Amino acid sequence: MEHKKSLILDAADLDFCLYDWLDVEALSRFDRFAEHNRETFEGLTGLARELAEEYFAPHNRKADLNEPELVDGKVQLIPEVKAALTAFAEAGFLGATMDAEHGGFQVPTVVYRAAFMWFQAANVGTVSYALLTTAAANLIREHASAELAAKFLPPMLDGSWTGTMNLSEPGVGSALGDLTTSATRTADGMYRVRGDKMWISAGDHELSENIVHLVLARTGGPGVKGLSLFIVPRWLGEPGALTERNDVSLVGINHKMGYRGTVNTALSYGSGAFPVGDEPGAVGYLIGEEGRGLHYMFLMMNEARLGVGASAVALGTTGFLHAREYARDRVHGKEIGAKDAAAPAVPIIRHPDVRRMLMLAKAYSQGGTALILYAGKLLDESEAETDPQRSAALALLLDVLTPVAKSWSSQWGLAANDIAIQVLGGSGYVRDFPVEQFYRDNRLNPIHEGTHGIQALDLLGRKVLLDGGSGLADLLGRMRATCDRLTAAEPELAALVAARVDRVEAVTRELWEDGDPTTALANAAHYLEAMGDIVVAWLFLDQLGALDAAPAATAAEKRATARFFITHVLPRVDADLDLLASRDRQLVELDETLI
Amino acid sequence: MEHKKSLILDAADLDFCLYDWLDVEALSRFDRFAEHNRETFEGLTGLARELAEEYFAPHNRKADLNEPELVDGKVQLIPEVKAALTAFAEAGFLGATMDAEHGGFQVPTVVYRAAFMWFQAANVGTVSYALLTTAAANLIREHASAELAAKFLPPMLDGSWTGTMNLSEPGVGSALGDLTTSATRTADGMYRVRGDKMWISAGDHELSENIVHLVLARTGGPGVKGLSLFIVPRWLGEPGALTERNDVSLVGINHKMGYRGTVNTALSYGSGAFPVGDEPGAVGYLIGEEGRGLHYMFLMMNEARLGVGASAVALGTTGFLHAREYARDRVHGKEIGAKDAAAPAVPIIRHPDVRRMLMLAKAYSQGGTALILYAGKLLDESEAETDPQRSAALALLLDVLTPVAKSWSSQWGLAANDIAIQVLGGSGYVRDFPVEQFYRDNRLNPIHEGTHGIQALDLLGRKVLLDGGSGLADLLGRMRATCDRLTAAEPELAALVAARVDRVEAVTRELWEDGDPTTALANAAHYLEAMGDIVVAWLFLDQLGALDAAPAATAAEKRATARFFITHVLPRVDADLDLLASRDRQLVELDETLI
Repeated sequence: MEHKKSLILDAADLDFCLYDWLDVEALSRFDRFAEHNRETFEGLTGLARELAEEYFAPHNRKADLNEPELVDGKVQLIPEVKAALTAFAEAGFLGATMDAEHGGFQVPTVVYRAAFMWFQAANVGTVSYALLTTAAANLIREHASAELAAKFLPPMLDGSWTGTMNLSEPGVGSALGDLTTSATRTADGMYRVRGDKMWISAGDHELSENIVHLVLARTGGPGVKGLSLFIVPRWLGEPGALTERNDVSLVGINHKMGYRGTVNTALSYGSGAFPVGDEPGAVGYLIGEEGRGLHYMFLMMNEARLGVGASAVALGTTGFLHAREYARDRVHGKEIGAKDAAAPAVPIIRHPDVRRMLMLAKAYSQGGTALILYAGKLLDESEAETDPQRSAALALLLDVLTPVAKSWSSQWGLAANDIAIQVLGGSGYVRDFPVEQFYRDNRLNPIHEGTHGIQALDLLGRKVLLDGGSGLADLLGRMRATCDRLTAAEPELAALVAARVDRVEAVTRELWEDGDPTTALANAAHYLEAMGDIVVAWLFLDQLGALDAAPAATAAEKRATARFFITHVLPRVDADLDLLASRDRQLVELDETLI
Repeated sequence: MEHKKSLILDAADLDFCLYDWLDVEALSRFDRFAEHNRETFEGLTGLARELAEEYFAPHNRKADLNEPELVDGKVQLIPEVKAALTAFAEAGFLGATMDAEHGGFQVPTVVYRAAFMWFQAANVGTVSYALLTTAAANLIREHASAELAAKFLPPMLDGSWTGTMNLSEPGVGSALGDLTTSATRTADGMYRVRGDKMWISAGDHELSENIVHLVLARTGGPGVKGLSLFIVPRWLGEPGALTERNDVSLVGINHKMGYRGTVNTALSYGSGAFPVGDEPGAVGYLIGEEGRGLHYMFLMMNEARLGVGASAVALGTTGFLHAREYARDRVHGKEIGAKDAAAPAVPIIRHPDVRRMLMLAKAYSQGGTALILYAGKLLDESEAETDPQRSAALALLLDVLTPVAKSWSSQWGLAANDIAIQVLGGSGYVRDFPVEQFYRDNRLNPIHEGTHGIQALDLLGRKVLLDGGSGLADLLGRMRATCDRLTAAEPELAALVAARVDRVEAVTRELWEDGDPTTALANAAHYLEAMGDIVVAWLFLDQLGALDAAPAATAAEKRATARFFITHVLPRVDADLDLLASRDRQLVELDETLI
């Protein structure tokens, strides 16, 4: 398909990934996706692009410059936000991946992810209200009773109610076992929730009739096993017939470096600001069973982590595209070696260092896109697969890849934005161009939904050990199969990747050989980062095996990007792997007064 | 000397660098510095710290939140800026390094740099007005006639007039040979300057009675040889008796990502907005000779590049100090391996990944400090040295180190700020804490005064070749001398450094063996970055040889930081050096439509 030029995403690369490389059309072999084909997929991504261009991109800077503020106790946003979200909802995007029985279209996640990236790249602040709503709706659909689903899903999926996730508290972020917000069961079988929550995106606003908060609160003893999950709506009652304000109140708004369009709040539950009946606390509806709150949240969180990765890649991609456009247009400086003062200036894309920066940003963009979509397809296959063993194996592989996809995309998508600033120079540093905002927006992604350091512990301390290491073994096996398959066509590149596959396998074994977690995990971030580069190198190599069906220009670009990544970037993992292999304990043993 | 705790700079590390390692007291052997001793040095740095704490740090965030704006055609700043600059001027800092005959104190640059970093870390936006003034004053003192110096220096050094540098134009940044602003000589021996200038920091404001613009303008043919340098004051006349407005006018204000306290402007010269007599153009005074403008500017620019490096290190250091403080106070999460849900939470400085981040930021801070002060001392020695050969050799070594000091400090000082955001997590991303501002402020440093890519070309394409490569040879010789000297005490670390010294020497030779600049410079940024890490590793090793006189706590900290840098960070250069050695031409040969 021919695409007109865009600075939001690279439509040709998305097409290549979906159709030539991942062959998502083949997903229609599963009952769940039987109604779909390339036409329905292209309809969805094409519509996403149209809406992103018409309703989201135009107010991206305006939303950055006009942060949400409190006016007469209400959160005020610029009006374009609501208009964009209405267009998004009316087009059916909120329920696109949902079951038909809930009014959804059963679109595969991999295709939805590609479509959604258009919105994330165009205006991540505005589309987050929708993202949080679909994430909350998915969780309710999967884990809440049919009764609760029937009550909350319809208004959430038609856009009249929005959703939020309430995990963190003023003193507690990553260590969820220490949460103190509590919930107590009342005589009517409902719960009352009391406590303070922090960093709640979209926690208070006037965009929707009601806000459906999903709240982690303690019903039992200490640690994560005492946590349950509740639906706590801002208003009680039915859509179009709200009866009473629930006891959820806004404590304050956080003012951020970026991502300013999404209001971020501190909320108080059961403060008595809006008492409901005689009991103290905000009225809450238990999801599933008591004590399983974190389990439900984690299923959602894995999806959210891939969503964060997608957001980071989308922002990195739009940064790259803006930088490339600038580098092609901007005529400045002479060719290296030109001595004549009258020699003509050239577009800066001719300068090797500008090329280095652009190729790096492009490799991060395309590598991250490959990673996110590969993970998306795994999710679809694991959920649609009817053979339980095959389904479990796919889910396990996805478990291993999730921290990598979240972190690698966040780290290097952000780096692509940093590069875009540098390519533009002084122009990149001023607000006349959007690249500095992309950077500030993207800076959140290595922090939220589990920091970089938390992902490193998750990968090396948990995921590679799961089920006797079979998820990692599956991953390494897939990598080796690609290397073998490409050895004839790309001997140099296949060998470069294969050497690192062997090495990371050996290092993983060495790290855990005595089972001591303090030594194994002492340099976990290096493991996460090395594994990320190796995975992306593998995916680039794998893509080289799928160029036959691609348009000639796409194939030539991909060859250049893959070669650049594997020869110029991948070798940096060796220093990480050497350090890991040394099992160096400096950081563990360091006297903390010497830091 | 005992210091009370500061989150602005690490006073103990500065003391160690100045007195135990660099032995700056020995500079008093030179006539120029004969009046100075440790007491006068400590008086200067102590006063800098006091003023930075009292007048600069308190309004750093306020200036960020209240950008300069145009009110009735005038640039309006918050009043704290003027108060701080007045305190700075009254304390004599503007002329501190100047000759006594110009009213200065002949303070060595290395000490002044350390003192100035207190202001840069406390509030880089405000102190830039002073920095630009002293830079302009230094240039006038060195290159302008005695008559011009007598006219302009006194009001600049007492703070009543401020200064600026005008190089860039709307279409021209790095490629100064393409500048188009012109100057023509008039019958009275003066010049008239006409053209537009861009990115002029402190270009228009009401902080001072007059603004002294130093303007590059063309008096001859194309290229850099046609450029001359002019003093173009905003107002004509004498201090306290200005007579007429000169034809310099404000075109607009640039709105930046950070560094917001320093107004950045577009200026127009000779637009006719303020005509002077019958001739068109702004009245300009020629500095030195026609055609030597860039030469004069470059001498200043080398100093400015070290100033940018110092600024980047100062901002990185204050970011690190804030992050360390947070990590010591913030109790969150349990020790690795603690299974008990009731186990107590620990300060996050106990978590290995937080330690990794802090040690990395600290190594960047201390490594950059060492680099900047080492370069400062070289400047003092080369200027004070009376033996012309020794002086020239020191100047050449400083020439080689200047692009490294500018770029390494900017790249990794900024990285320290990025790390500080990550250590604070969500708190790092909000404006309640200063670390996100430090990042935004520091993001300018890899761009201005010659981008990262320009520094790479300067180092590999020019500096390492100067005088038959004798500057590089001197540098490598000093590195090897340190490695030899430390081999007994630190065999492992000395060997790690020595191996890279050999390697970078060999790679430099290989890159230039056929003299083809397109191949040699194809991956110049990798050379710049590898050289920077090797230089800093050497300086850390060298510092280990100066611990005997240091307080025990300082020595123990330095041992930990040096070991961490040399074992955990330095090995990353191997991938750069391998790539350089391969003389890979991918980036040069790439068809630009494939980027």
